[in-house]
Amino acid sequence: MVRWEPDSRGRLEQAALALFGERGFDNTTVADIAARAGLTERTFFRYFTDKREVLFSGAGQLQELLVSAVVNAPDSAAPIDAVAAAIEAAGAVLQERRDYARQRQSVIAANTELRERELIKLATLASALADALRRRGAPGPAATLTAEAGIAVFKVAFERWVTESNQRDLPWLMRDSLTELKAVTAGG
Amino acid sequence: MVRWEPDSRGRLEQAALALFGERGFDNTTVADIAARAGLTERTFFRYFTDKREVLFSGAGQLQELLVSAVVNAPDSAAPIDAVAAAIEAAGAVLQERRDYARQRQSVIAANTELRERELIKLATLASALADALRRRGAPGPAATLTAEAGIAVFKVAFERWVTESNQRDLPWLMRDSLTELKAVTAGG
Repeated sequence: MVRWEPDSRGRLEQAALALFGERGFDNTTVADIAARAGLTERTFFRYFTDKREVLFSGAGQLQELLVSAVVNAPDSAAPIDAVAAAIEAAGAVLQERRDYARQRQSVIAANTELRERELIKLATLASALADALRRRGAPGPAATLTAEAGIAVFKVAFERWVTESNQRDLPWLMRDSLTELKAVTAGG
Repeated sequence: MVRWEPDSRGRLEQAALALFGERGFDNTTVADIAARAGLTERTFFRYFTDKREVLFSGAGQLQELLVSAVVNAPDSAAPIDAVAAAIEAAGAVLQERRDYARQRQSVIAANTELRERELIKLATLASALADALRRRGAPGPAATLTAEAGIAVFKVAFERWVTESNQRDLPWLMRDSLTELKAVTAGG
């Protein structure tokens, strides 16, 4: 018999983030996380393959969101506008989880292996965006450059959002950082 | 007594690349590499800490080259022009080693761990470029965006260079890909 646990996944995520913040990622075990959440290790492994996955299980959803925004942009939209719509849509979703995102970011910043994993996640998102742009008919190098530019904007806007003391929201920072990218590439 | 070996490092690199290509990275040992080069394992470890380092030991030099080109760009150069000069200079150096670069790239493309390591190398280069731009006075987000844009151009130009059948050289492809980036970000 499996006892029904309301929002076990959410409780495990919260417990993991709290412990990673208190003790560091390396010094936290799955047993610790399960105990903090008041659940069993067995329940943990129903949701996550390991403790790292707690921090990266959202990557698939983020990718789907970005790709579907590119796919659903009007045919007339230039690739950069399709990508702008995608990162703004992602920004709106992340905005709803600001505290979580900040906590997660500070855990990742403190650990080399996690920073590397985060870079790989972003590179994977850039590839997925480039594929989506190619399916819209953008030629290979242009699709890759547009996607990489979009992810660079995403990264910079996200860093500003989690570190800046001002209260700008993430979709605004995405737009502002894209404007900045246009200015710097133009040589301004 | 250490016997003097003319260009041991170069022979080890060549032997390693040949074996990685023939057997795959995972199926090649340091002992195999040393034997193919006609050297001892002890000699191998005088130059490299492990077999992966054979593929990544050039990263430090590449970073120095990029950073010094940014630092030495005229004060009047816009950040994007300083970065353009840097990646073109790197392109000219890599152009001299085209066969090596192509072989290396096909080994990396065949192995997930090496692809991840290459992404981390590129991200590290982007950070170093951003730091160099900040030292020239570029504000934080603009420095990061310019550096990321430069590395995106580097990546795309490099991919074109190692895969395209045409005979364009790498500095030309760097300039052409930067022009393309300017066009796509402008929404062209």
